Amino acid sequence: MEVLFTFVPRENQQERLLAEFPEVNFRFLYKNKSFLPTADIVVTYGEDLTAEDIESAENLKWIMVASAGIEKMPHDAIEDKGIIVSNVKGIHKTPMAESVLAHLLALKRALPFIYRNQRNGEWNRKTKSSELAGSTAVLLGPGAIGSEIGRLLQAFGVRTIGCNRSGKKAPHMDDMVSFEKVLDVLPEADIVISVLPSTAETYHLLKKEHFRAMKEDTIFMNFGRGDLVEDQVMLEALKTGEIGHAVLDVFEEEPLPADHPYWKMDNVIISPHVSSHSGKYVERALDVFIPNLHAWIKGDTSPSNPVDMKRGY
Amino acid sequence: MEVLFTFVPRENQQERLLAEFPEVNFRFLYKNKSFLPTADIVVTYGEDLTAEDIESAENLKWIMVASAGIEKMPHDAIEDKGIIVSNVKGIHKTPMAESVLAHLLALKRALPFIYRNQRNGEWNRKTKSSELAGSTAVLLGPGAIGSEIGRLLQAFGVRTIGCNRSGKKAPHMDDMVSFEKVLDVLPEADIVISVLPSTAETYHLLKKEHFRAMKEDTIFMNFGRGDLVEDQVMLEALKTGEIGHAVLDVFEEEPLPADHPYWKMDNVIISPHVSSHSGKYVERALDVFIPNLHAWIKGDTSPSNPVDMKRGY
Repeated sequence: MEVLFTFVPRENQQERLLAEFPEVNFRFLYKNKSFLPTADIVVTYGEDLTAEDIESAENLKWIMVASAGIEKMPHDAIEDKGIIVSNVKGIHKTPMAESVLAHLLALKRALPFIYRNQRNGEWNRKTKSSELAGSTAVLLGPGAIGSEIGRLLQAFGVRTIGCNRSGKKAPHMDDMVSFEKVLDVLPEADIVISVLPSTAETYHLLKKEHFRAMKEDTIFMNFGRGDLVEDQVMLEALKTGEIGHAVLDVFEEEPLPADHPYWKMDNVIISPHVSSHSGKYVERALDVFIPNLHAWIKGDTSPSNPVDMKRGY
Repeated sequence: MEVLFTFVPRENQQERLLAEFPEVNFRFLYKNKSFLPTADIVVTYGEDLTAEDIESAENLKWIMVASAGIEKMPHDAIEDKGIIVSNVKGIHKTPMAESVLAHLLALKRALPFIYRNQRNGEWNRKTKSSELAGSTAVLLGPGAIGSEIGRLLQAFGVRTIGCNRSGKKAPHMDDMVSFEKVLDVLPEADIVISVLPSTAETYHLLKKEHFRAMKEDTIFMNFGRGDLVEDQVMLEALKTGEIGHAVLDVFEEEPLPADHPYWKMDNVIISPHVSSHSGKYVERALDVFIPNLHAWIKGDTSPSNPVDMKRGY
């Protein structure tokens, strides 16, 4: 059996795989797809496969995506060939929830002000610190990551309102609304956080009216995908003071173009799509992959975290 | 009855006091002590009273300190006259715990790196992000504030080890040690946080040997009082790489002198004694003071949060 990694795990991680599966022929090759035609399984970050690649991969039966987003994959080609796709959704929740809380607490506790004064050698105690406690947060997409963010927010005394398609209950949400009713709760939100994936339904889901419904000091955080909001809508909301701050980990165009107005805006934090980064990332992806591969070898072709290429998540 | 505030609450807060206590003669005067000789009660931040002031205050029976630190007060003069002192210890816990978590998460999730790249207009995804989850923290002084920090750390999956004089149990601490045994646990600590007050016992309590026992990437946070560690000891630990980072909210000399080496050090965060700042601060101090004043007027002279001027906290 041939397993092709299109990224290169650390040496000790490679050794872990080789020791677990002496019968498997592993190839760890950074963005080198020359072994694709013979690979039975591909492990990828999900950004490097084209329809032609899928066409050429004659033995390919399973693509394990060591990431959450699959929007850059050739959905039709994969579906046509009946290739199974799975991802590692759950493993992002800890670093992403910590990033969300880091940015929120940094703004509330005036860390940008504190850092700036230190750079200037200035002892300045005139912080405009506030507190996260007592805030209300609306979470768009309270799945594995959103619920983990909700759990931590609740620990800080934040009221959480989850928002999904159905409005059905989700963990660590004090209240729930459906997308259709989100305008009703946005006026209460001190914080609005999206961790929604990119799908046909979430494309440009947030419009002018949503930002107009928010408070003038609302912190909006997009940690899902950049096509949730059109750039012009986001820019207008920020420039006219309809909201207070945006903390953006994702953008319509990535890398964010060098001349984009966001770079110079005081009320925008640009996090260059790094909120899920963690020194523990590949280790955790292998924790998901290894039991799935053991099962696969025994004939169980239903790995955990299967992805429906039609729905897009 | 005369109550002298040596700071000036916001207008709505003054109105709240006047409405609650029509019989009381309030004076709200910023650092003006001309009414001290006739005041029955003084409400102060604790930094503006001298032994001579206490001598002149012939009617003074109760000093309410709207702060936690009382080390700048004239202890002997107050004790000699049998004046009751109380403070508002508990009200710092929310902003301080949020500040501690903000700084920790900012370092773990690479916020200084993210902010710097944005200033430089650089899309740079090479963060060295790590996670707070799975860390071990040693908390020096797990009282009201320390335990609140412990509660939040535990929510992030951090193991908490409290350290006090007796080693007796404290809330939200997975383990406890006495000060005498702290060297045994420091080698396990990824994070060491002090919220200790300034007393004879805590003066220069942490010495070279304590920093040598820590890991080379330990984050040390002093959010108590600056005289816990001698400057030279702290500087040596940081310069020789005995520890990774220091986040300091308090200093041996405040304001921190303009030529102090900390200002230029990459592994030091200077928070200019602002970690307890909050827009909700005076409001909460009044929430403590008002019921105590009602009781006092009825003859109950034992306000909540009494301070023992001998012990120093």
